[in-house]
This record gives sequence, structure tokens and C-alpha cells, in this order.
Amino acid sequence: MSGNTFGTLFRITTWGESHGPAVGVVVDGCPAGLVLNSSDIQKELDRRRPGQSDITTPRKEEDKAEILSGIFSGKTTGAPISILVRNYDVDSSKYEALRDTPRPGHADLTYGEKYGFRDWRGGGRSSARETIGRVAAGAIAKKLLGMNGIDVLGHVIELGGIRANSVDIEHIRNNTEKNPVRCADPDAALKMEAMIHAARGQGDSVGGIVEVIGIGVPAGVGEPVFDKLSAQLAKGLMSIGSVKGVEIGLGFKSSIIKGSQMNDPLAIRDGKPKPLLNNAGGILGGISNGEPIVCRIAVKPTPSISKEQRTIDLSSMKDTRIKITGRHDPSIPPRIVPVAEAMVALVLVDMMMRGGFIRTSIIGSV
Amino acid sequence: MSGNTFGTLFRITTWGESHGPAVGVVVDGCPAGLVLNSSDIQKELDRRRPGQSDITTPRKEEDKAEILSGIFSGKTTGAPISILVRNYDVDSSKYEALRDTPRPGHADLTYGEKYGFRDWRGGGRSSARETIGRVAAGAIAKKLLGMNGIDVLGHVIELGGIRANSVDIEHIRNNTEKNPVRCADPDAALKMEAMIHAARGQGDSVGGIVEVIGIGVPAGVGEPVFDKLSAQLAKGLMSIGSVKGVEIGLGFKSSIIKGSQMNDPLAIRDGKPKPLLNNAGGILGGISNGEPIVCRIAVKPTPSISKEQRTIDLSSMKDTRIKITGRHDPSIPPRIVPVAEAMVALVLVDMMMRGGFIRTSIIGSV
Amino acid sequence: MSGNTFGTLFRITTWGESHGPAVGVVVDGCPAGLVLNSSDIQKELDRRRPGQSDITTPRKEEDKAEILSGIFSGKTTGAPISILVRNYDVDSSKYEALRDTPRPGHADLTYGEKYGFRDWRGGGRSSARETIGRVAAGAIAKKLLGMNGIDVLGHVIELGGIRANSVDIEHIRNNTEKNPVRCADPDAALKMEAMIHAARGQGDSVGGIVEVIGIGVPAGVGEPVFDKLSAQLAKGLMSIGSVKGVEIGLGFKSSIIKGSQMNDPLAIRDGKPKPLLNNAGGILGGISNGEPIVCRIAVKPTPSISKEQRTIDLSSMKDTRIKITGRHDPSIPPRIVPVAEAMVALVLVDMMMRGGFIRTSIIGSV
Amino acid sequence: MSGNTFGTLFRITTWGESHGPAVGVVVDGCPAGLVLNSSDIQKELDRRRPGQSDITTPRKEEDKAEILSGIFSGKTTGAPISILVRNYDVDSSKYEALRDTPRPGHADLTYGEKYGFRDWRGGGRSSARETIGRVAAGAIAKKLLGMNGIDVLGHVIELGGIRANSVDIEHIRNNTEKNPVRCADPDAALKMEAMIHAARGQGDSVGGIVEVIGIGVPAGVGEPVFDKLSAQLAKGLMSIGSVKGVEIGLGFKSSIIKGSQMNDPLAIRDGKPKPLLNNAGGILGGISNGEPIVCRIAVKPTPSISKEQRTIDLSSMKDTRIKITGRHDPSIPPRIVPVAEAMVALVLVDMMMRGGFIRTSIIGSV
Repeated sequence: MSGNTFGTLFRITTWGESHGPAVGVVVDGCPAGLVLNSSDIQKELDRRRPGQSDITTPRKEEDKAEILSGIFSGKTTGAPISILVRNYDVDSSKYEALRDTPRPGHADLTYGEKYGFRDWRGGGRSSARETIGRVAAGAIAKKLLGMNGIDVLGHVIELGGIRANSVDIEHIRNNTEKNPVRCADPDAALKMEAMIHAARGQGDSVGGIVEVIGIGVPAGVGEPVFDKLSAQLAKGLMSIGSVKGVEIGLGFKSSIIKGSQMNDPLAIRDGKPKPLLNNAGGILGGISNGEPIVCRIAVKPTPSISKEQRTIDLSSMKDTRIKITGRHDPSIPPRIVPVAEAMVALVLVDMMMRGGFIRTSIIGSV
Repeated sequence: MSGNTFGTLFRITTWGESHGPAVGVVVDGCPAGLVLNSSDIQKELDRRRPGQSDITTPRKEEDKAEILSGIFSGKTTGAPISILVRNYDVDSSKYEALRDTPRPGHADLTYGEKYGFRDWRGGGRSSARETIGRVAAGAIAKKLLGMNGIDVLGHVIELGGIRANSVDIEHIRNNTEKNPVRCADPDAALKMEAMIHAARGQGDSVGGIVEVIGIGVPAGVGEPVFDKLSAQLAKGLMSIGSVKGVEIGLGFKSSIIKGSQMNDPLAIRDGKPKPLLNNAGGILGGISNGEPIVCRIAVKPTPSISKEQRTIDLSSMKDTRIKITGRHDPSIPPRIVPVAEAMVALVLVDMMMRGGFIRTSIIGSV
Repeated sequence: MSGNTFGTLFRITTWGESHGPAVGVVVDGCPAGLVLNSSDIQKELDRRRPGQSDITTPRKEEDKAEILSGIFSGKTTGAPISILVRNYDVDSSKYEALRDTPRPGHADLTYGEKYGFRDWRGGGRSSARETIGRVAAGAIAKKLLGMNGIDVLGHVIELGGIRANSVDIEHIRNNTEKNPVRCADPDAALKMEAMIHAARGQGDSVGGIVEVIGIGVPAGVGEPVFDKLSAQLAKGLMSIGSVKGVEIGLGFKSSIIKGSQMNDPLAIRDGKPKPLLNNAGGILGGISNGEPIVCRIAVKPTPSISKEQRTIDLSSMKDTRIKITGRHDPSIPPRIVPVAEAMVALVLVDMMMRGGFIRTSIIGSV
Repeated sequence: MSGNTFGTLFRITTWGESHGPAVGVVVDGCPAGLVLNSSDIQKELDRRRPGQSDITTPRKEEDKAEILSGIFSGKTTGAPISILVRNYDVDSSKYEALRDTPRPGHADLTYGEKYGFRDWRGGGRSSARETIGRVAAGAIAKKLLGMNGIDVLGHVIELGGIRANSVDIEHIRNNTEKNPVRCADPDAALKMEAMIHAARGQGDSVGGIVEVIGIGVPAGVGEPVFDKLSAQLAKGLMSIGSVKGVEIGLGFKSSIIKGSQMNDPLAIRDGKPKPLLNNAGGILGGISNGEPIVCRIAVKPTPSISKEQRTIDLSSMKDTRIKITGRHDPSIPPRIVPVAEAMVALVLVDMMMRGGFIRTSIIGSV
């Protein structure tokens, strides 16, 4: 495997299965001197955890972060930071029925084919609980970015086919966390909420689109030609479970317009070069240009649905049917927001360290 | 920088600027015993080179591949393969006018901001000529894949807003190379060609969507959770210049349908598990499932247009206007097809080596 | 920092400080299907732990390994294996005196200079407890090697200037663990033991040389020109605290003999090529040749001594003197044996995976 | 293979066989703005090339460096620097006799076993010509170090059993290049020269020890626990052909002295902490302490000797004998000096970039 590490200078390694004793992450490369405690991490884990509202799974998980290393006297020491979250409320019995019947749209069959053997309890490593490590590490990345004047904001812009109206960054900052779907347009949020309830009522699920914006990123971040900022973001975001597409700036829309519409005109403003539009999403030639970094991900509908589906029985090698019971979010986008933010933050910190924008050994004065 | 290497076990390093003496690539990790000569590489370079038809730039480049190492008696030795392509037909004089006026939509300004200094001749490292190294290396990857029964096919499915009809794989294989736009739907191809001519006539440009399909990839390829096959493809494809979006399977469409429509039902066919649809694009949980790998990229319109655009003069720090003259493709998708195929092939070989599907030291009997 | 990960395909990440809550390791890349439980790991940790005999520190540490992920039904799943060892018997009060007086020969001053700030409790990250993660991960590597018929044996060949007689591999296998110094020559072992007691009596310490042999490694392991087997071993072994030299085969002795003495003559034996000597230590051109891999490390004397030493007071920036009290091994070589074995095992598994000698996804039939 | 890349942020990839058309290197990660031309590189290649004196092989190679990318207007641009050196004076005919008779002490047999097939012309990839890429890249690293006040000096301290007297750094700087053995002690140099002639007269060869010193390296360089400065140096140096041992500071001698002798006492000098000795070789806990970095390598005697040796005939699988004719250095240490310096310089630049001591994008003002 050995695919559980992400980043070059700010590097995280996640581990853990949904029904094992714990999940966690090791964050290597955080500079010394950062004031950090478990509440910094808890704050983000709480945005990710299930049971936040009636549109998420009622599975109650406290997801309490325990920091095991890398901190001394309330500050990071430069040593790896190990964070552990125990799994509670784990009942594997329901999954026994799924032992030989891979769930359509899930990784059950592919894990079985790759490893010849699979931890069938709750998705094992392919469970959404795997993202706890990403979010915990992302919380540290966000704190580092914050000290450099950089903000990472995610919000749901489409859900179940309902498109939110476009709003400005201040609206996103102020409105997103006010409703359970994390949509900055309050009217659309209400419709999305209704859509989620309707899908659940039908034993079905809905997907959506999440946008993440990096604000305050200086020009010059990104390492062409393969480690372009856009390429690293694409990898980080596409590595999140259920994500089927990534776009930067105008993204797929750029394929249907003319060059004269796509190119962001340049002008001098306040004595500095300034693009007058941001169709590029803040990245040209794989390098940031000082404008907000804008990326979007397509999130598929939750594969766990209670509607009957066609599947197979691996013990008899015959066709069969399955109804997935249990507690599942009928829509992933609201809870994927903090995960996507975490991945963007992790990419930004790593690439800013590579480019010399964030120091690697000591942060500020200690 | 140090962002010019791609891959872990099958690893390429590209180098070279459009107006320097040469461009090239070092391919490290090719197993010994592969029959290889420069015509294997030339074949793919010829699909990439300009001047193939009247819809591409008339810049005449022979782009002749010279292999400098790693081959003995017509076979690879396991040592790195260095490939060099000289730059001819290089006239930098036209670019002198652009020295201080960054072209909108290009990397001129971001390179300048990152490196404090920039090779203004023909885009330097951010030129499309950079993709020669990718295509040359991809030719080797494709040959390795071919020996494992795997084919990588790219084609244009949308251009300037014109959408091709969906056709099956045999049509793509047989029709794509028969028209200059590389579209497998001949009717759409004609309209796309006309669209390109029209855009050029207006001093403008058009973008499009390219689809790449990996056929014959076995189940089990991909290394969760960060080095998922989908994540590696996203990085590889997004690292190509002008690409603003990547999607796998249904991609962004998956955000608007229900879970019951998205999940590919499973059945036993010929004694083996078989998804009855391929909405997943051949990847679940980041691991291939044996179905065709389907990915798509959004390609923005060529930023070099002859229409007047607003830009700035860095010497006077004042606003100005620019008309880009010279020879430029009015539409990138047809020529990006072999580049995108190369990136998909490179990802597949590397990930298949990591998963133990392709041997790393010796290929077959020698 | 981000220097806490080792390996490419079989990759470990260690974390933890000596006086923090715990130390641990994440092992990523272990193939699925390996029967593994905590006693496999405990066995090796027990060889490393202090308090084994009267020549080691009397610090009593149980060092109990807890496996938190990657195992299901007694077998590895291919997911990362997280192992945690709690720190008990931690009394930091003695270290308060050392807060501002860096111990000569220790990393106190360099950590302080690098990170501007340092965890002064018991050496923090530079403590010998850091090697727990290496040994735990090495236990898994050794098990994988064992399934491939490969053994890794370490033993002390010199201590405090006392040189053991050279013995054959069977003697090493049978005698090393029978005495507390881990020397395969029983007579020398007695003298070494006496030497350790004498050094302790003088408030001083002694160093030595440890040899590690990899038996059964097939020909063909190693990736020239930078990732030669010898180079990877050198890195892995030199990364252990207190190691100041690494040699392969004849090592430094090869510098004083003639080529005609150094070159291992070749002959056909049992129908196969066979070197008649092993001056090369099993590696030529960075690739294993089928003979035992022989490496040796120079271990400096324990820097913590109770003799008075000259040092500085960082609070007053004046010269001062220090006597280090507390419980310290007067000689590191006996306890470094399992650590050095672990590093050799980790290098061998990783390089054998890279060369295709050990499968990466599934081990044998499950 | 994929073992031909070295470094993380300052990263080189070498390629080429001794009897192929060329050898070369791609240097990725050099910051923009460094004044660089081919004479900077030529200077170091001239120190490495054969035919410098009557103690080296009379093979006449001009080894002329051609820079193919990454430079514009005499300065680096931040893009990868590709350097090519054509192979001339290549006569493979003599090697045909060696096709089936692997040379003892060479990599002939191990390459054959690994790749099933081998380029038998002049050692192929395992030839000493492979080091041209290292030296060319090292020349750039040295220039970067020089701008940061750092010098890397190598010299022969032992050859064929003759040990040079220890001299101070100024003597090393001034005397080393004045004699063909590159020994800073002129009397020892004369004896070493005589020793080389004697060995050649006997159809034999001699090895030796080379010391490399990094002067001016600031405190704080090195990334514990695996990427310690010592570990990276060990890997880099051990990856050079013919090197069988690496040591730092007192190295193997540290194994026979007491802790009270080994520990470098600390004192305040000129208001700053200062070790009064440098037994540590400038590195403690894997981090530089501001003292000179001192490392030493054991170089085995040249394996190509004209004395008759026992070997095998792979076509008949029978024992045979071999006399190696042709032009070979009877002693490698004098010519390995610039190669070892290059590896130390490459490690220092890379680790200083990782630690934030050298900027990664722009060097100084441009």
C-alpha cells in the first residue's frame, strides 16, 4: 500500500479503520514554536463529526483528539505530532450481513480484489472515518496559514441539483456555518435541506458540489511542471472518498467559452499588477497569482442507500439483492466541507514551505 | 523548483525551454529487456507536433527524438533512458516585444513573480513544448502497457461548445485519428473544424473536453488513501498546461443524480463479479475494478489570441494593450490528446508497478 | 522537520518523545495476509528495552506494544499498521537541572539551535526511546523476510577496545543472545562485561562495533546509482543515534589491501556462479550478489557520564561544569543490536519490494 | 530501477553509460538568478577527468559540458538545468572478450543477475563515467554554497596503507591540488605516488581513504530522525562506486575511546556556545553544530587489475581465468576526491534548503 502519506515538507500519515480501536494521523514537518492544543484540532473535528444535525447520520461520535507527541509547554517542538481519536459506538454486527455481499458504489469489492481479504466492518480503511486524520492535520495547517494571513473557506454550492446563488467571500465567511448544509445562500440552503429529507424518505441519496477558496495566498506558490499548485490540489481533493471531479477557476465552463472571455485582463492597481477577473481561479501556469485560489469538487451521492440494489454473493458467486440498513448521511457534501478545506490547507502549507513562503524549522519568535 | 519529476517507480524528469537548444526527458525505472527504438517514440511525437493540419499552428517542427542512454542491442537495460529533442525553427525576436508585457491567460506574470526573472522567449518552461518530454516518456509507458494488454485511447468529445455523440470504444479506436480534431464522431468533427476556423478568423480561440480511456487495466490498481488511482490521474492530468478540470466516470454529472442511479449494480457474469454500468469510471475507493478507466479533462481556450487585450507594461508600470501575433493553435484539445494519453499511461505504469502488476527489473524473457 | 519517514514502498513513520505520553510508529506498505499479533512485536521490543541485565540502565520500562490498526482476524489487511507504546516510569524532575546546560556529546544544543526551543525532558525526540518505533516496525519487516527465507542477525564484535574472535554464522545465531553484551564469542563477552562494569565504576562509558548480517538475500536487490543497497543501508544505519561510522564487507580494511586481495574470485559451484570469498559483503555495484550482506557500525560511547564535564549555562551564557546523574547504559552496543537489525530488515524489505522480490499487495495465499 | 535521482528540494537525476553516446544530469530545484556558465561546471569536470597525470588512466576524455536548459542571459531561471557530456574515445571492442566473463570485484555479475541482460561495454551504467553527472551537478551546488560562505574540501589522507600527517584546513586548501594524488601532506603524497606506480608495475591496484570537510555550515542543518545530516551524507557517499565505508568525525575510532574522551566539551567563546573539540565531526543528533562537517570514505582498490584472476565463463558455465587489459587507474582515491566533494555539496544544499537556510525560488537580488 504505502499510499497513506501526503506532502513533501509538511507531511501527514493517516491510519485507522472505522471499526478498529482508533484512527489517527502523524503530522511531520510542523515548525517549532506554534502554540497548539487539542482544542485547535477539536474545533475542526466537531465540524466533521456525524450527528451535528438531523441531516447527518445520527451515529454519535465524540471524536475526541488526543495529542501524543510534538508539543512541549503548549508549543510545537518541530518533532512529529501524533494525534489519536478512539473509536466508540462501534457495532460491527450489522456488517456481518455484508461480509460476502459487496455494496454497490462502495470500495468493498475493489479492496477485496486488491488485498485478497478485507476488513468488512464498516468499510474498514475506506470508511469516511479515515478523514478524521485529514481534518486533524488540516487544523494545524490552517493555524499556520492563519498566521500568514491566509484563510481557507469551503461551502456547498450545489446539492441534489439545487444550485446556490453566487455570493461574495464575506457572505461565505458569515453564512456558511449558519445552516446544516453549509450553503452560503440561505434560500438555497433551505431547499437543499428539504431535498436531503426527501431523498432519505425515498431510501435514496443525493450528491453535490463543494467549493473551497484560499484567500490571501501570495503570488509565486506552485512548482512547475508536475507539482503545479493546481496539480497538487487536484490530487489532494480527488483523494477524498466520493469525489469524482475537481476543477480550478472556471473549470469545465472554460471549455465552452472563447479565449477572449477566458483570459483575465491585467491592469495596474495601487501600483501593482492585478488581474481584473479571476477566471483562472488564482493559478496560471501552475503558480498562484495572488488572487483567491478557487477550486470545486464533485461529490457523488452517498452509496449507502436503503433502496434495494442488485449485487452479488461472493460465497455462492450468485446474483442477489441488498438493502443497506444502518445510519448513513443521505448527502455527503455538508460534512465533506471541512475535509476539503483540510486538504486545500495541507497543500497550501506544503507548497508554501517548498517555495520558501513558510519557514520549516522555527515559526516566528519563541 | 524541483517539481519536474513525476512517478515513484516509473519516474520521469522533464527539462527544456521552447527557445533553448533542446527539450528532453529522463525515464528512470523502465525494466530491462523491452525492445525499444526511436521510432516507438517518434510515432507519438508526430501526433503531438505542430503543423499536422491546417487547424494547428503552421510552426514546422520536426521534433526528432534522439535516445542517448539506457538501450543496448535494441533493448532497454534497466538504466535511465535519456531522450533529447533539439529545438529548431526558433525565432525569439517576436517575443522581445512581450518582454515587459505579460500575456493575459499565460504564465508570464506568475513565473516572473516566482523567480524574479523570466525567460521571455516563447513561454520558456511554460511553453507547450514542455509536453514533448511527457509524450516521449508516455510512448515507453504505452509500450509497456501494450505488453500487458492495456490500451490508452484519447479523443476530443467537446470543442467550442460542440458536443460529440457518444460512441463505443471500437469507434473511438478506429475514427479518432481520421480527422484533424481527433473526434470519434465524424459529424461533430466537421463542425468542430469549422468552429476552429471561425474562431481563428475572429482572432479568438476555443477550448474543449478530452476524454482518455484506459482499457484492460486489471482490478486492484491504486494505493489508498492518498495515492488512489483517481488522485494520481487527477494530479497527472491537471499538471498539463491549459487543463482546468479533471473528472472520473460520471464526474460532475454525479453531483446531480441519485445514489440509486449512480451506484453501478453488480452481477456475476462468466463466473466473475461484473459491474453492469461504469458510472464509477473503473475506480472505486481509489482502486481499479477491472472496467475501463474513464477520465475527462477541461481544456481552456488557447490564451494566445490576436484580438486586442488589456495588459500591463512592467517597465513603466502602466496599463497597456496587446495583440499577440505569431503562429498559435486556435484550439488546444486536438493536440493535447496524445499528451493526456501519455499522462494516463505514465500513471498506470507507475501504479501497476507499485501494486506488483508490472515487473520492475526484467520484462518477460530476454 | 519531516524527516521521520523511512522507506519507499515499505515505509515507516516514527513519532514520540521520551517523556511525552507515548512513542510509536505507523508502518505503511505491509502486504495483506501476514499473520501478525502484538507478541511478534513484543519479542523484539523486549530485546531492546532497558533493565534486561545489570549492564543496562535499571530504568524499568515495560514497553508494551499496542496495535491500533491494520490487522483484522489476526492478519494484516494492507492498511497502515499503527503501533503505540506508552511511556511509564517518567520522571522529568531530574532533567530540570539540565534545562539550560546542554550535555556534551548530546543533541541538546543542536536541537535548541535548530528549533529555537527544546523539549529538555530526557532528550525529547533525540532520546534512545525514539528507537522503539524502529524496532517495532523492524519486527514486521523481519517476519516478512523470514517468510522469504531471510534472517537478519546482529552481534557485538568489539566493545571498549576488546575485539571478539571471528566466528561463523551458526555460532552467531546460537551464542549471541546467551550473554548480556550480545557477543557471539563467550570469552570476549566476559571481558566486555567486565569492561562495562569498570567504565561505570569510573563514571565513564565505552563504545563498540556491531555487525549485522543479512542471510539468504537473493542476488539482484538494490537500485543503482543512488539507491544502491549499500547506500540505503548506510543511511538507515547512520540514522541511528550514536552511530558514527558504517562499513560494508571489508569496509575500511579494503583501503589498505591490494586489488588482487580485495576482489572476490568467481567460480561455478553447483552449476551456479559463486564468489569464493565475501570481501564485498554481499554487494557489488550496489546490488546484492547472493552472498550474506555484511555491515558494521561504529557506536560511540554513551555521552551521558557521571564524570564532571565542561559545559555552558545558556541562561547566563557562562562556562560551567556538569555531572550527569540518573540511570544510563554505560555502553550502547548491546542494546543497539536489535535496533541495527531492525534498520537492516527495513532496508531489505523495502528494496526487495522495489526490485519485485516481495509482493506489495498480498502475501502468499490467504 | 528508478534509483537515479538524489535529493528532495535540490534534486539531481543522472543518466548515461560509459560507451553510449553521452552521459548527463538534470539538476532540478536550483533557485533562479544564479550566474552560471559551462566553465563553472568544466572546472570541476577537469578535476575528475582521466588523463590528468601519469597516475591516472591515459584514456583521454575531454568531457566537455554542454548546458541545454535552465539558463537565460547567463543566469539560472529556476527551471531544470540539463547538462550533457558526449562520450568520445570509445572503443568497445576490447570489452567483447569480457562479454561472458564477469570481472571479479565489478558489478558485471550483479547487473546481469538483476536485469537478466547487461551492457557489457565498459561497465555500462556501473562505469566510473557515471560520476560525471554527480560532479557537474555538484559544481552548481558548490557555487550555491560558496555564495553562503561555505566551502567543501576533499583530500586523500591514506593510500595503499600510507597515512598522511594530519594538517589544518588552510594546508588542505593550499596543498591538495598541488600533487596528483591530492594529498595535503607533500611527503606522504610522494610516497603514495610511488606506491601507485609500484602497484601498477605489479599488475595490481591500491585503495585509500578520502576525507571531505564542509567549512562554514551553520548550526541547525539536518532533519531527524531518519534524514539526519549524517544519514544523508552516509547515503550520498556510500552511493559512489568503490566506496565501502563512511564515517563522521572520529568515526570508527570513537568505538575504542571513553565517553569522557569522545564528548566535545562546551564553552562560551565570543559570547557564543562553542565545542572545544570536534570529535563529533560537526554533527550531533543528526544536526550540524556550526563546526566543520568532517566525513571520511574508505575506497577499495580498483577492481580492474592486469594480474590473472579466477572467474567464470557464463556461456559454458565453467571456471576460467581473466587478465584485464586496457587503461585503468591503478588507484581511485585521487580522482574520487571531486566526486566525494560533489556528493557532500549536494547533500548540504538539499538539507540547507529543507531547513530554510538557502532560498528555493530566487537567489539574492536579480
